[in-house]
Amino acid sequence: MVKKASKTNERILQEGLALMSREGLGGVTIGRLAEQVGMSKSGLFAHFRSKEDIQIALLEYSGRLVVPVIIEPAMKAPEGLPRLKSMVEHWLGWAVRAGLPGGCAVAAAMFELDDVEGPVREYVLGVEAAWRERMTGLVRRSMELGHLRADLDVEQFAWETFGIYLSHHTSSRFRRDPRADERAHVAFDALVERSRPA
Amino acid sequence: MVKKASKTNERILQEGLALMSREGLGGVTIGRLAEQVGMSKSGLFAHFRSKEDIQIALLEYSGRLVVPVIIEPAMKAPEGLPRLKSMVEHWLGWAVRAGLPGGCAVAAAMFELDDVEGPVREYVLGVEAAWRERMTGLVRRSMELGHLRADLDVEQFAWETFGIYLSHHTSSRFRRDPRADERAHVAFDALVERSRPA
Repeated sequence: MVKKASKTNERILQEGLALMSREGLGGVTIGRLAEQVGMSKSGLFAHFRSKEDIQIALLEYSGRLVVPVIIEPAMKAPEGLPRLKSMVEHWLGWAVRAGLPGGCAVAAAMFELDDVEGPVREYVLGVEAAWRERMTGLVRRSMELGHLRADLDVEQFAWETFGIYLSHHTSSRFRRDPRADERAHVAFDALVERSRPA
Repeated sequence: MVKKASKTNERILQEGLALMSREGLGGVTIGRLAEQVGMSKSGLFAHFRSKEDIQIALLEYSGRLVVPVIIEPAMKAPEGLPRLKSMVEHWLGWAVRAGLPGGCAVAAAMFELDDVEGPVREYVLGVEAAWRERMTGLVRRSMELGHLRADLDVEQFAWETFGIYLSHHTSSRFRRDPRADERAHVAFDALVERSRPA
């Protein structure tokens, strides 16, 4: 019985992921997901207590894909700047490589949930902060190893890298610009150049 | 009768603007807007033929606010780099100054509509392209006047400026970071420095 429940859970999450990736968090409602999975609304409520509950489960589920698609390959690069560069390289366009054809749900949520208070917004804030911390950790290690300037503003570096990620997201996905990858690389390389030791 | 209709139109647009700004385009449906305005759905249909029709009217309506809030003040700055800088300065956080407490609907739409084909996506593509053209026009004029390098990649400059705008949007609105303005200025100044004549 437990096994059956968890199998159904898995199927709900799989269907929900496709829905969220395509239409954003706002597209994931109990009604639409029930329809997609072929269950009744009350059947779905047996697995998740609320729309917010499902949305958080989906964000968690998609977040697990970050490990094999971004973190593991990046950790193979040598410590310091090579690893930081590899992390950014694997971050750009990660969602599509992770089988999320609709793009990065967290990026979309940062625009969708700026004024929507509640547990989903809190969850996304946590995801963003954890990712930023991972980035700044790699920047700090690059500084320690002398790959980047010792007096670098680490938070500024991360802030600008997030801007490159967001511009890459809109230019590759919304505008469908074939030069989006190239633009992102030029921008990130310039940021690194500016941040090298004198 | 025409006057009455246009007054109702105006009221629908005002209410819809608040809804769109807070919840994104996805929050603007015939049902919710009718409720907000205190009209029946069929009453609303007499003014707008479809959800897409309303969404485009709202984007158009909010776009008109760009003139007094961004363009007019920026045009007062001297031609070339001062005007380009002033335009970016007035662009950052423009929506709140324009009375749209929920932020820039076009930025949100670029994440919301990346996979949603149709007239609203086409409209937003046009708005984005027109804005980018305005930016690149100011960059080109700065090059002609010798304020920026003659061999600058104009599209790259605009791409990075859009990244700064998007990172400013998420950091000021989603993260509510009090240093968002400062971060954006440091990033844009660095972009300008890199783009000056040798």
